[in-house]
Amino acid sequence: MNQITLPTLYGIIGYPLGHSLSPLLHSTAFHDLGIPAVLLPWSTPPEKLAVFVEAMRLFNIQGSCVTIPHKQAIIPFLDKITLEAKETGAVNLIYREGELLCGDNTDVRGFMAPLMNIPRATAQDNVLLLGAGGAARAIIVGLQRLGYTDITVSNRNATSAQLLAQQFNLKVIEWDKRYTLKAQLVINATPLGMQGQFQTQTAYNYDGFKGRTGIAYDIVYTPYVTVFLQEAEKAGWQTISGLDMFIGQAEAQFKTWTGKNLSENAKQVIIDTVIPQHFSNKKG
Amino acid sequence: MNQITLPTLYGIIGYPLGHSLSPLLHSTAFHDLGIPAVLLPWSTPPEKLAVFVEAMRLFNIQGSCVTIPHKQAIIPFLDKITLEAKETGAVNLIYREGELLCGDNTDVRGFMAPLMNIPRATAQDNVLLLGAGGAARAIIVGLQRLGYTDITVSNRNATSAQLLAQQFNLKVIEWDKRYTLKAQLVINATPLGMQGQFQTQTAYNYDGFKGRTGIAYDIVYTPYVTVFLQEAEKAGWQTISGLDMFIGQAEAQFKTWTGKNLSENAKQVIIDTVIPQHFSNKKG
Repeated sequence: MNQITLPTLYGIIGYPLGHSLSPLLHSTAFHDLGIPAVLLPWSTPPEKLAVFVEAMRLFNIQGSCVTIPHKQAIIPFLDKITLEAKETGAVNLIYREGELLCGDNTDVRGFMAPLMNIPRATAQDNVLLLGAGGAARAIIVGLQRLGYTDITVSNRNATSAQLLAQQFNLKVIEWDKRYTLKAQLVINATPLGMQGQFQTQTAYNYDGFKGRTGIAYDIVYTPYVTVFLQEAEKAGWQTISGLDMFIGQAEAQFKTWTGKNLSENAKQVIIDTVIPQHFSNKKG
Repeated sequence: MNQITLPTLYGIIGYPLGHSLSPLLHSTAFHDLGIPAVLLPWSTPPEKLAVFVEAMRLFNIQGSCVTIPHKQAIIPFLDKITLEAKETGAVNLIYREGELLCGDNTDVRGFMAPLMNIPRATAQDNVLLLGAGGAARAIIVGLQRLGYTDITVSNRNATSAQLLAQQFNLKVIEWDKRYTLKAQLVINATPLGMQGQFQTQTAYNYDGFKGRTGIAYDIVYTPYVTVFLQEAEKAGWQTISGLDMFIGQAEAQFKTWTGKNLSENAKQVIIDTVIPQHFSNKKG
């Protein structure tokens, strides 16, 4: 008699969901660790968010990743949110406490993780944050938690940068003047460089990086090496790929759900999935 | 690199769902046949039926078994129903045709299957059908499809029996007079004999069976051998267990979804699950 165990369900919601790596990453890790569970992609238009939350309870779904455009909109449907979710105003993770549906934001920890692994990174560095959207908020909360105090934000839309600066007590520099700030940690939180229409663009170029060294941190992870990271490497900077942040935030999600770390195999599967894309795109 | 395939979802809805065998049966068969799919139990109160149907579309669920109390109530939510579903007024299976959600009733084929395997069963036999609930309708449609014309229904609530007899052109006999009819095929479609409060009861007893032979068909399948079947066996009758009908209707469901038969292993797992219950219940 060959009997099977029924899996527990987890999901990811977003719209459009595209080729999210989360189902492959988490489901592979569940499998590797012998946990009977799967994480499935559920493309959910905004008007179906209420149905999704009811269905989570009905189907006893144990958790879900939350991505664009639902990170803010999901909050009113949840029973409880963490401090990170409050501070960033966004939720990227739903988990359960008994019957309660709880929201957390692991982008904060995901951003912090690779930075903590670089010995030369120090909270005394002055930081230039490029972009003022949803991702920027998680980055700022992460930077402030690590003790960084000298943070300057720059955004093509100056109003968004001003609002963010007021809320988190940051400096602002105009987009056209961003190269005048000699930052030691430059972070790209814009979509520039991302696979698609922005792929050949960069928020910061070689001329900006050259003449000093520092850390260039991109949150874009498709392609694996963006123009931003290429320019930084050429100038001798240390780089952090968006894939490190992606895996960092997923590691924190998996730990919340299971109490365990992602398997090394699962992380490798993701790296192997993203890196061939990088090289095939370069050929094209 | 050890990569996994994400499963397609199927479900069963009912309320309360109790210890349904369908998730184990179908999920084991999916596994045995190498089909990446699982069938999960979703206890769904009546007021959540609309949410369930919306969630089926949202989560791209490919099919669902439907059990009490939703077999009639689900119909208005579906895009299309089969002839069997129309004739019985009940749906026990949802399947997809592209974007359409379709309802079928495989209890009809499930009832017919074991009867067709018994050489001595003939459509000339006169039939006594005990019970006039939802299951009785599928049985009558199955009997008429097999060519049986001499069918008498008996029910403790005479009104239900009368209505059923009018609709399907049957005879009726009062409950207290049921033993006066010398039927060759006696079918129990009442809950008498079922595990729980009715377990020690039977709709037809040894004195009714004795003095002639025939076929006794119970649709109850927990316990595996009901008092009804014990009394029939004692009188020398051939018996059909409700488990045969249960497996028959599941076989038709699985075939609709996958085009394949249930694996022998999956059926054996169910038999092994129900039969030990029978013996442990007899001890208690």
